[in-house]
Amino acid sequence: MRTLLVIGIGAGDPQQLTLQAIDAIKQTDVFLIVDKGDAKRELVDLRRALLDTHRPDGGYAVVEIDDPQRDRIPDDYQHAVTDWHARRAALFADTIATAVPENGTGAFLVWGDPTLYDSILRILERVQHDGRLPLAVEVVPGITSIQALAARHRIPLNRIGEPIHITTGRQLARGLPAGITNAVVMLDAHHGYAALEEREPGSWHIWWGANLGTRTEQLIAGPIAEAAPMIARAREAARDSAGWVMDTYLVRRAAP
Amino acid sequence: MRTLLVIGIGAGDPQQLTLQAIDAIKQTDVFLIVDKGDAKRELVDLRRALLDTHRPDGGYAVVEIDDPQRDRIPDDYQHAVTDWHARRAALFADTIATAVPENGTGAFLVWGDPTLYDSILRILERVQHDGRLPLAVEVVPGITSIQALAARHRIPLNRIGEPIHITTGRQLARGLPAGITNAVVMLDAHHGYAALEEREPGSWHIWWGANLGTRTEQLIAGPIAEAAPMIARAREAARDSAGWVMDTYLVRRAAP
Repeated sequence: MRTLLVIGIGAGDPQQLTLQAIDAIKQTDVFLIVDKGDAKRELVDLRRALLDTHRPDGGYAVVEIDDPQRDRIPDDYQHAVTDWHARRAALFADTIATAVPENGTGAFLVWGDPTLYDSILRILERVQHDGRLPLAVEVVPGITSIQALAARHRIPLNRIGEPIHITTGRQLARGLPAGITNAVVMLDAHHGYAALEEREPGSWHIWWGANLGTRTEQLIAGPIAEAAPMIARAREAARDSAGWVMDTYLVRRAAP
Repeated sequence: MRTLLVIGIGAGDPQQLTLQAIDAIKQTDVFLIVDKGDAKRELVDLRRALLDTHRPDGGYAVVEIDDPQRDRIPDDYQHAVTDWHARRAALFADTIATAVPENGTGAFLVWGDPTLYDSILRILERVQHDGRLPLAVEVVPGITSIQALAARHRIPLNRIGEPIHITTGRQLARGLPAGITNAVVMLDAHHGYAALEEREPGSWHIWWGANLGTRTEQLIAGPIAEAAPMIARAREAARDSAGWVMDTYLVRRAAP
């Protein structure tokens, strides 16, 4: 039986690592690094720096998994993702069987939290379900970019007693469910907040952040109409200085 | 100018502390402990144990703030909470002015994350806004019970591409917005999930946890109809062994 640790490492600031994550890193024989096609050098370097800090004496292996590419503009989004996961499960099972010794411990280091918009847990569940390889899976939570965003803006995510909606740019473009007054948006490369402003001009405020917790962090807050051009500039500034940009934002409807 | 650190300390497991939180704890002159009427001894002890571990040499003060009680069954929930916050802001400003030296650093240790269903940030903003006391506020994110729940059940919070709704038992009792298929519920002392099962029998699955990350943790998962009696028993077991119970759960509608 192999043990697989799925470790949340925070949103970018190495100080966001938990003691539990550090313990997990110390127990690991083989780190499995999954890099999507859009992963940039600095993201890889940040992860290597964590290992240099918390495993200064070495004694571990790093194996990179060259993730199969997925169809980026599919006709059927859910089907495309499901097919991609099937190919990933096969690749992961093979890699783990080869790279992680029997009775050894492998680990995935996941940005943010492994339970939020990340597919590693689903892939490992599939490997277990397929009976390809006996695996014990353990999950270590990590600070998400949502939490880093709210902390840096020093704001509560919700108004008193109100729910919070966490969604993607893709979903936001289709509109928010009726009655939603707070929404956090992840994975939005297409300025989905602009649609809120178009539908209800002047009604929404935005708190936006990019590359949170890193040296290229950018923060913008304000009514969407005023903030939008500043966000566009700050997004380019983050990309120019880091070579990549990952942004997250909270939108909130003005109180009636 | 005084500095106030609002430090998330995780959901109960001391290993969930981040390096950033430990640094913040090390910088603090005065810890301000806010204990609501329902805080139980073990919760206070857990916090004291964190200080013993991370400030073994002492050199700090602990000041308890005896929180004003709020009307628990108000006619107007939002107004009752707002009035309570006004009284708290006055008390907090007085306590900080007296207990934290000028140019010193005070800190609040908050369970979970200070930006999620916690009122300290709102109160400090009010103190700043009222001009009562010049304060620099910094926020340190912490692992929430939501993240601890998903990690212990080893499940993603969302299905592929779907949004996640975070809400309270009070809101759930009024029904979920149309189209919501994943909801995490906090602060529910009244088994709000039972209403989902009544409205749509057999449609919802629940992943539930109490006292997550502590020695009295309880975990239950299953279709709501099957899980409900087990949850009721596990909730009492947690309360019996810990003297208190704090629970969180994820409900998910079966795929169509």
